[in-house]
Amino acid sequence: MTNPTTITAPEGLPFIEIVREFDAPVAAVYNAWADPSLAAKWLGPDGYGMEIETYDFVPGGSWRYLNTDQEGNVYAFHGVFHTVEPGELVIQTFEWEGLPHHVSLESLRFEPLPGDRTRTTAWSTFPSVEGRDGMIANGMEHGVVEGYARLDGLLT
Amino acid sequence: MTNPTTITAPEGLPFIEIVREFDAPVAAVYNAWADPSLAAKWLGPDGYGMEIETYDFVPGGSWRYLNTDQEGNVYAFHGVFHTVEPGELVIQTFEWEGLPHHVSLESLRFEPLPGDRTRTTAWSTFPSVEGRDGMIANGMEHGVVEGYARLDGLLT
Repeated sequence: MTNPTTITAPEGLPFIEIVREFDAPVAAVYNAWADPSLAAKWLGPDGYGMEIETYDFVPGGSWRYLNTDQEGNVYAFHGVFHTVEPGELVIQTFEWEGLPHHVSLESLRFEPLPGDRTRTTAWSTFPSVEGRDGMIANGMEHGVVEGYARLDGLLT
Repeated sequence: MTNPTTITAPEGLPFIEIVREFDAPVAAVYNAWADPSLAAKWLGPDGYGMEIETYDFVPGGSWRYLNTDQEGNVYAFHGVFHTVEPGELVIQTFEWEGLPHHVSLESLRFEPLPGDRTRTTAWSTFPSVEGRDGMIANGMEHGVVEGYARLDGLLT
């Protein structure tokens, strides 16, 4: 049994909020995002191959990774890190290369909870409401929930 | 007499669109954005000193500049370039350091018009409607209109 993932997509606005709690302290949860060898183990939906090509987790650094499905189709994503404040806040751009030039901005806050637990709040901003709706229609929730469940496993 | 600048802030949405035409071909207008020694001459409102500290105009590059008013107050801005497609499209993050962590995403499209003229369309996305409204309340229009008028002068 894992913690619930709360995804909110406010009607008519280009935002998605994803709130999740983890049974591990902030330092461990943050590290699972910051260290590419860990991120590769949990990012994305179940059943995909994951290759992190670039992951320069500093302000101004770039990232790119490739997800491969069981038929061998490759889905590539890339962006840049704008803000990296260890244990507190990461702000980065995000683009799926299958839909070029549709770039979103994602912020991720880490918050300590009693009992050495952690709450993360991800806030994604899309350049159109249609782009936000398309991201949800394409099964974003699915990938997020499965990824976070694998992250639970890594943290225990 | 300069070309009009059309600024649209759709009610209740976190976007600003700025459309402007220039009496110069795309290559020249694009170059005035791409070359920091030119950008320093026109970016920002009238009457401010401008120092471009970093301006690595490539995908994944960083930028930072300082505007100084006549009383010596310094206003610093920084971000990263996500997309740089020469003569076509630039997508970058934008943060005023006076309001940390309020990051917007800006895309700028260049479009050729008949008669060797150019239309630029800037589309800014803010992580909240309040942030968008605050940017307008703080005189963003003023700085944009004055900057573009100085760019007209550079292009002739």
